[in-house]
Amino acid sequence: MNLNEIGEVGLIERIKKKIDTKDPHIIAGIGDDAAVIKSDGRNYTLITTDMLIENVHFTLQAMSFSQIGHKALAVNLSDIAAMGGVPKFCLVNLGLNKKIRVEDVDEIYKGLQALAEEYNVKVLGGDTNFSPSGVIIDMCVIGEVEPEFLCLRSGAQAGDSIFVTGALGAAAVYLAKGKYFPPTPRIKTARAITKTVKVHAMIDISDGLANDLHHIAKSSNVGALINIEDIPVFPEADTELALSGGEDFELLFTAPDAEKDKLLREIPGKTGTALTCIGKITGEGIKIKRGDGKISLLSLRGYDHFK
Amino acid sequence: MNLNEIGEVGLIERIKKKIDTKDPHIIAGIGDDAAVIKSDGRNYTLITTDMLIENVHFTLQAMSFSQIGHKALAVNLSDIAAMGGVPKFCLVNLGLNKKIRVEDVDEIYKGLQALAEEYNVKVLGGDTNFSPSGVIIDMCVIGEVEPEFLCLRSGAQAGDSIFVTGALGAAAVYLAKGKYFPPTPRIKTARAITKTVKVHAMIDISDGLANDLHHIAKSSNVGALINIEDIPVFPEADTELALSGGEDFELLFTAPDAEKDKLLREIPGKTGTALTCIGKITGEGIKIKRGDGKISLLSLRGYDHFK
Repeated sequence: MNLNEIGEVGLIERIKKKIDTKDPHIIAGIGDDAAVIKSDGRNYTLITTDMLIENVHFTLQAMSFSQIGHKALAVNLSDIAAMGGVPKFCLVNLGLNKKIRVEDVDEIYKGLQALAEEYNVKVLGGDTNFSPSGVIIDMCVIGEVEPEFLCLRSGAQAGDSIFVTGALGAAAVYLAKGKYFPPTPRIKTARAITKTVKVHAMIDISDGLANDLHHIAKSSNVGALINIEDIPVFPEADTELALSGGEDFELLFTAPDAEKDKLLREIPGKTGTALTCIGKITGEGIKIKRGDGKISLLSLRGYDHFK
Repeated sequence: MNLNEIGEVGLIERIKKKIDTKDPHIIAGIGDDAAVIKSDGRNYTLITTDMLIENVHFTLQAMSFSQIGHKALAVNLSDIAAMGGVPKFCLVNLGLNKKIRVEDVDEIYKGLQALAEEYNVKVLGGDTNFSPSGVIIDMCVIGEVEPEFLCLRSGAQAGDSIFVTGALGAAAVYLAKGKYFPPTPRIKTARAITKTVKVHAMIDISDGLANDLHHIAKSSNVGALINIEDIPVFPEADTELALSGGEDFELLFTAPDAEKDKLLREIPGKTGTALTCIGKITGEGIKIKRGDGKISLLSLRGYDHFK
């Protein structure tokens, strides 16, 4: 069977079925933003990894080497944020071809380190390899979270309010102009949120609002109804880009409706990050209410690596 | 500056100087087989990562997909073994091109899982990506070690005996025939060794005996003298292949000379793994004693990704 017959989602589902993740130390494995492990200390360990490949996840035309280093770390930090955790360490594997100069590697590390220092993340090391074709940068980030602040994708409950941070569509607008939008990993905001209320489910918006809402709904076995007019849209973007555009790395989360006013009152002031309630978790069906009041199904959107 | 002017070793040295690894929780970072972290539990956490790239670390001609999965995990388990630790979890990132079929991915996981089950390692998840050129498999393994059993590269002392497990040159002999030699990650043997004596320094032989002896000597700021006739050579290999051939993934370690007899008596019986004393740690100079009694410098050998 060709990969395009099954797609990326199908492939991951297939792998998930084959691997045995039953272990008393695994709190969450495949299928959340980061793996969650209980070791012999009080806090849980978080581990996440992402591979960026030239001409798939970045181009040398649209991004500087420093921006590539920034992105490689930022996408992983965002995964730790979405678990309610704090990043601590990272490992970097590089695949470099003959066109790459030593100074380019310096720049990759410069971009990466500037972000690492901002979040007090230490680079533990890694590996450098020859790559016969494009540049590859693979990162692994280790973090931790107190059990009471852990946010999974799977805890959303009917009646919850649904929130997003920031404004959506920024990365898509920049991409259309051949530019890189440097995302802010929402670690400080996520920590403030989990310390303010009991979050039921959280994810970072890497695949676009529509897809990531589907991820939460599927993991939690619930539905959702969002109001199109309430979606915070980045300047120059439109609602469709806000729904479909990936890589904004804002947070999407659900919390009890009773906590809504408290969140909207406290979080923007505490963190400087905008927060918007965009709808509610329902029993089933992932739906969107248009401006004219009509309700329709919110379809999956966006990119599949193998289709 | 081009990468070939500085080489892989030069590049890693350059990166090492630029990154800040001062942190009370980092016991060992860049420059050992795995990073060692002290978290809030009693045991240290070990983390290691390796990237395998098609036509650099493997070819689809010489290796089956199942063997590629095996190798990706084996090289990382070997790093955990060299720290004296026990592997627990792994994450897998795949880069797949259009030629790869779903069944090939099944086979990668089959090879990987068979080895994972043997060592009770759980797959936590990972990422699948499109790769425009060759197949990429990147793994991260998390393990743990009791502080008293931790083996670094940096503890060798003048007067120590130097030991290797197994026989060397196997991977080089297989490679010359276009075949894959499936290494045995020496986890059980390393654990038996660290529980029998106080190991001063340990490394896995991934870059060849000569290079990895240099790594230990440099990290420990000592010299070494090995006897060419004592090197255990794999059938069909010769001494030069045993010195230069990488990817055997046997253990190279040093321990007090007074423990030599105990190690040689107990370890093979306990573990089924051959153990040989090949020489001694000295004050300075990395040297080899030839069959005729002449002593010469043991030069660095083997492969540099960028030269």
